Amino acid sequence: MSQTIVPPRPVAVPVDAPVRSTMPTTMRALVKHHAGPELKFVSDRPVPTPGPRDVLIRVKKAGICGTDRHIWEWDAWAAGRIPVGIVTGHEFVGVIEQVGSAVTKYQPGQRVSAEGHISPMVGYNARTGNAHIARDMVILGVDRDGVFADYVSVPEDNVWPVHPSIPDKVAAVLDPLGNAVHTVMSAGVSAKTVLVTGVGIIGLMAVTVAKAAGASRIYAVDIDPKRLALAKKLGAVEAYSAKDAGWVEAIRKETRGDGPDVLLEMSGAPSAIDAGFSALRFGGTAALLGIPSRPYPFDLTSHIVFKGATVLGINGRRMFETWYQMEELLLSGRLELDEIITHEIPLEDFAKGFRLMQTGEGIKVVLNVS
Amino acid sequence: MSQTIVPPRPVAVPVDAPVRSTMPTTMRALVKHHAGPELKFVSDRPVPTPGPRDVLIRVKKAGICGTDRHIWEWDAWAAGRIPVGIVTGHEFVGVIEQVGSAVTKYQPGQRVSAEGHISPMVGYNARTGNAHIARDMVILGVDRDGVFADYVSVPEDNVWPVHPSIPDKVAAVLDPLGNAVHTVMSAGVSAKTVLVTGVGIIGLMAVTVAKAAGASRIYAVDIDPKRLALAKKLGAVEAYSAKDAGWVEAIRKETRGDGPDVLLEMSGAPSAIDAGFSALRFGGTAALLGIPSRPYPFDLTSHIVFKGATVLGINGRRMFETWYQMEELLLSGRLELDEIITHEIPLEDFAKGFRLMQTGEGIKVVLNVS
Amino acid sequence: MSQTIVPPRPVAVPVDAPVRSTMPTTMRALVKHHAGPELKFVSDRPVPTPGPRDVLIRVKKAGICGTDRHIWEWDAWAAGRIPVGIVTGHEFVGVIEQVGSAVTKYQPGQRVSAEGHISPMVGYNARTGNAHIARDMVILGVDRDGVFADYVSVPEDNVWPVHPSIPDKVAAVLDPLGNAVHTVMSAGVSAKTVLVTGVGIIGLMAVTVAKAAGASRIYAVDIDPKRLALAKKLGAVEAYSAKDAGWVEAIRKETRGDGPDVLLEMSGAPSAIDAGFSALRFGGTAALLGIPSRPYPFDLTSHIVFKGATVLGINGRRMFETWYQMEELLLSGRLELDEIITHEIPLEDFAKGFRLMQTGEGIKVVLNVS
Amino acid sequence: MSQTIVPPRPVAVPVDAPVRSTMPTTMRALVKHHAGPELKFVSDRPVPTPGPRDVLIRVKKAGICGTDRHIWEWDAWAAGRIPVGIVTGHEFVGVIEQVGSAVTKYQPGQRVSAEGHISPMVGYNARTGNAHIARDMVILGVDRDGVFADYVSVPEDNVWPVHPSIPDKVAAVLDPLGNAVHTVMSAGVSAKTVLVTGVGIIGLMAVTVAKAAGASRIYAVDIDPKRLALAKKLGAVEAYSAKDAGWVEAIRKETRGDGPDVLLEMSGAPSAIDAGFSALRFGGTAALLGIPSRPYPFDLTSHIVFKGATVLGINGRRMFETWYQMEELLLSGRLELDEIITHEIPLEDFAKGFRLMQTGEGIKVVLNVS
Repeated sequence: MSQTIVPPRPVAVPVDAPVRSTMPTTMRALVKHHAGPELKFVSDRPVPTPGPRDVLIRVKKAGICGTDRHIWEWDAWAAGRIPVGIVTGHEFVGVIEQVGSAVTKYQPGQRVSAEGHISPMVGYNARTGNAHIARDMVILGVDRDGVFADYVSVPEDNVWPVHPSIPDKVAAVLDPLGNAVHTVMSAGVSAKTVLVTGVGIIGLMAVTVAKAAGASRIYAVDIDPKRLALAKKLGAVEAYSAKDAGWVEAIRKETRGDGPDVLLEMSGAPSAIDAGFSALRFGGTAALLGIPSRPYPFDLTSHIVFKGATVLGINGRRMFETWYQMEELLLSGRLELDEIITHEIPLEDFAKGFRLMQTGEGIKVVLNVS
Repeated sequence: MSQTIVPPRPVAVPVDAPVRSTMPTTMRALVKHHAGPELKFVSDRPVPTPGPRDVLIRVKKAGICGTDRHIWEWDAWAAGRIPVGIVTGHEFVGVIEQVGSAVTKYQPGQRVSAEGHISPMVGYNARTGNAHIARDMVILGVDRDGVFADYVSVPEDNVWPVHPSIPDKVAAVLDPLGNAVHTVMSAGVSAKTVLVTGVGIIGLMAVTVAKAAGASRIYAVDIDPKRLALAKKLGAVEAYSAKDAGWVEAIRKETRGDGPDVLLEMSGAPSAIDAGFSALRFGGTAALLGIPSRPYPFDLTSHIVFKGATVLGINGRRMFETWYQMEELLLSGRLELDEIITHEIPLEDFAKGFRLMQTGEGIKVVLNVS
Repeated sequence: MSQTIVPPRPVAVPVDAPVRSTMPTTMRALVKHHAGPELKFVSDRPVPTPGPRDVLIRVKKAGICGTDRHIWEWDAWAAGRIPVGIVTGHEFVGVIEQVGSAVTKYQPGQRVSAEGHISPMVGYNARTGNAHIARDMVILGVDRDGVFADYVSVPEDNVWPVHPSIPDKVAAVLDPLGNAVHTVMSAGVSAKTVLVTGVGIIGLMAVTVAKAAGASRIYAVDIDPKRLALAKKLGAVEAYSAKDAGWVEAIRKETRGDGPDVLLEMSGAPSAIDAGFSALRFGGTAALLGIPSRPYPFDLTSHIVFKGATVLGINGRRMFETWYQMEELLLSGRLELDEIITHEIPLEDFAKGFRLMQTGEGIKVVLNVS
Repeated sequence: MSQTIVPPRPVAVPVDAPVRSTMPTTMRALVKHHAGPELKFVSDRPVPTPGPRDVLIRVKKAGICGTDRHIWEWDAWAAGRIPVGIVTGHEFVGVIEQVGSAVTKYQPGQRVSAEGHISPMVGYNARTGNAHIARDMVILGVDRDGVFADYVSVPEDNVWPVHPSIPDKVAAVLDPLGNAVHTVMSAGVSAKTVLVTGVGIIGLMAVTVAKAAGASRIYAVDIDPKRLALAKKLGAVEAYSAKDAGWVEAIRKETRGDGPDVLLEMSGAPSAIDAGFSALRFGGTAALLGIPSRPYPFDLTSHIVFKGATVLGINGRRMFETWYQMEELLLSGRLELDEIITHEIPLEDFAKGFRLMQTGEGIKVVLNVS
């Protein structure tokens, strides 16, 4: 017969028991208080009211992202994008406090994180598993109130329940870890040689993710000797200083004379991008997460066309394929994040947190909110 | 810099103007009135009340599916699955009449169809673009009230706005056309030779879809000479009777001695499945939509393992990648559906509609509801 | 049991009967006779002697490629690459005249073309189905004697037997047609909207190939009104002048406001590349065949990273997947090449052939050799 | 400009220095001497004479495969396939002793293994990177003289140069390891949960390969407690006895209630295949290497169609993509083969070798030839 009989349905998974609490009306928050540098700590910000399809989350821990640093420093990008007055921050873990009237999937008491790309969920990408690049996206802590606060309200569709075995400290940085996982998994590294150009926060995460995801041999390039040393510790077989001219040749020699199968570009630096493409083998794959601050003379002919390269632009992380992959990688026990998450400090010490990032003393800094 | 600056947002697309109407409280419907054959026409069914995230749609046209015929005939499958009392039917086009209080994407007056697989949208498949095979799925007109009625209520997430250039008659059968499109697009037919085993409703659709999607040469096999003749008209270069023993050899000869690149299995008949796999070239792809009514001795060793075959199980249609593909194929002007949609009859003549299907006189029969 | 029993073997396909001939010792040829413009016609070039694994082919027809025009005009690239004294040309069809002592697959009398990328077949790409981008490649008519001559010797591994139903005129241009097919098939166009930027020879071929391969709607952009008119004739639903600023917006409007799913870049012009990427939808695929003559300021951030684009560098054509795809597309009867192959002229009139290309009066010009 | 300028060529890699030797005319070999069980050791087999495109290899070590055991035991398959009189064996490592007159890629003295699937390299699969399933394949030690001998002659195209860091013991079993690698890499296991049904030689290899290739969590099922214990040692997080009815439910519970993402079927046992498909999550991928000895009632409807599964038939190993992947996995240092290759014994003790396999005391047994 033709396919006119429908398959049986698997059984639902039970949700955790609900937990209710008495809610305050105001809260602590880090606010972009003026069109200039730094953030202001306030303690009388009204607690947000969730809409019918939103959940209100009590924030436990929140990571400081490079984006937050741009907002802190009020550079040209921040000045052109950020509405003065918003609460910043978008990396976090917390506990659901309230759910909107039309929410069906979650209950108070669940420990969750959330995807910070908030989409009206209309149009091609939103409806085909690519909501991370959907139209009319707004971003938590960038375009609307974020997570450097006691409470944040996000749409139900953005919530991610955190696996019990993942500690809060790690759950607070699933957003940037997701950038690394999306880059690595898009490129496909299983049984391949991998070059990571730029081992800042996400580049370092990419090293441990690539190793856990089955890369055979990983090479790292950067200008910072401390980060290079850490990259080796996390699994790179070699770590080269970008200042040594010979590194492209050295990597090629290691990889059958062909060059690495995969380039994970995490620096955004034109010189690193160009050298990375030069190193890449003919027919290889480059996944680009780093963003050059402006257009620069790029050799499409040699780097992409003649090379027969596959180049993947990586934006955010897939909703929610990347999150599932990330959970699996964490459950494998093979991700090493302890030396990447260098500091946990109280929310009130936020100024110190930004300073740690600016000096390079800290890599990933997490704010303890509650 | 690292990826800490977020991309600009594209602009929203405006929604059609709302249209309000005075609603009746009862409606006409075809109801599975008892645990036995046939359906009962009633005119006093209460109009459904949409929940906060549902839309209420006034049905214009509805297609009769093979599933509906199983329900009509009350076979073993139907007796085991269908709750007595429900309104049946799941293929349709209509106009939104009301929207629930938490609906944000649609407005009354929009012409829409809807995906009939209704998911709570939790779990891996639902959250990764594969809601069509998600857990806890219920099906419109099978597990809950369907579309053989003046009104139907469906979740906002299931609604599909119909492109203005697609006529109602075609919009009413997007569901089965989607089965054909999902099968063809999963297999990938561009510049490939394709064998379709079984040219019933969906098999015939698969012929015209495969041609529009770029199959180089299509071969059809069936036992019904009328359907085979129609398959040739729709684009098959050859149509073989399954009763002629030599057809596998004939197709192989046409295809470099290798056999076709792709098998689209639409019959569910063991003999056709086996012959189709025998014909398939080493390393080819088989997409299986037809369902054998019970397990039978299948030669996994020859048909899949040694052949190095890729076999794809096709269930429903992807939400909503298949729907976008279908819209594009319809906009290309290359799909020929006129001779597949053989009859349009008033809702009240439903008994005739089922008879047309049972005798084979009709292929796809559409009920005009309003 | 485990997989320790091996599969049965299919039967061999018989080869055409051999045809022997008495061979001359000299032949006609177009030679790059000096380090300057034009080619010289000679009639006393020694006929090449095939090595043990080579076949000697009597050339019937040969196409003039843009590369040949660079060699004719002796531009900077040609001056840096072409060894003075070689016979040029690499697109052709002919008949096997002799086979080397260790040749096992072909016999004299077979009508064949050949892939012009000649590889020692060592190393990763050569051994994994990607010989088209393998190391140590040399190119027929560029690095060693080519096909603008009565005879050419090529390795057995490069020979492509031409299907009997493909006329000589078409068989002579399988090389550039293969560029178009490789570009289209790499991008994947089935049920997708496609933008072709640049409709020169290969761009025009890409339009008819994309249509045959199942693209739903094709848009073409160029500066030449005659080529744009031909693009529409070959299947583009719209053809825009690159000089009209509004074309990006116009295409986006046609494609749900998203932009086309696929960009086939065939111009190598920075302005067209940039506009093409601007038009491409978020998450779309760009296949780049055109080559900018030098690096230029390219916006990796907007065009690739934020867009979540997949970018494919296209070099030559796959050996021999593209050739099989091309044969299938030709057998489908859907490729329209008659208005692309504008001229067939005798070998001796080669100067006229190059003039036809330079003036734009001709598109693809074929030399009749024997 | 259009793509008419060809890319620069990378530089060739030098070959090891040649080593010549005085050749004997006869050699030791294990011969299938009659149409019945066992093999006969002979010491006067003529040394094979390589053809113009063949290389003659002096065998150092050779693995005993399950296929060899079928030949030894002279079961129905062997009686129907094996020509009496041939030298058996196909897994090996050795040193090139002589090269044919038309050989260009190798030189005497190189340490090599070889792919045992020998193809005339004609037809679709042979020419598109899928020679492992090409037509007219013959198999070393099955259809023509094999490697249980001092010397073997194989076509140049089949030779695989062994990386210096891979020990002979491992190089001798690249053939079955390649089965495991092909299965794992075809399925794609990076960041996925994986179920291996059947942990015989190749199943055990699949466990260590899947872990090295990035599987997040691996589950093994078998009936042999010793093999299950070894599977856990090699990386399985759980190993279930196939005799315990509850294992499907136990695995599903471990994997979000969905079931594992990937099934690697290595047993060929109908009950294991069925249970494996039952466990597999909706939309998962099953790679089938194990071969049922005959067709059996298989539930295509539940296991493939409704499940939306992707099923991959795995035959041999890809030439030579799998070999490169295998080399990378070995170079990663993450493959654990020491407890899988249980015995190394002299060629003359071959009878003991077969006995070790038959009793299950040995897993992989390697014969030391020279």
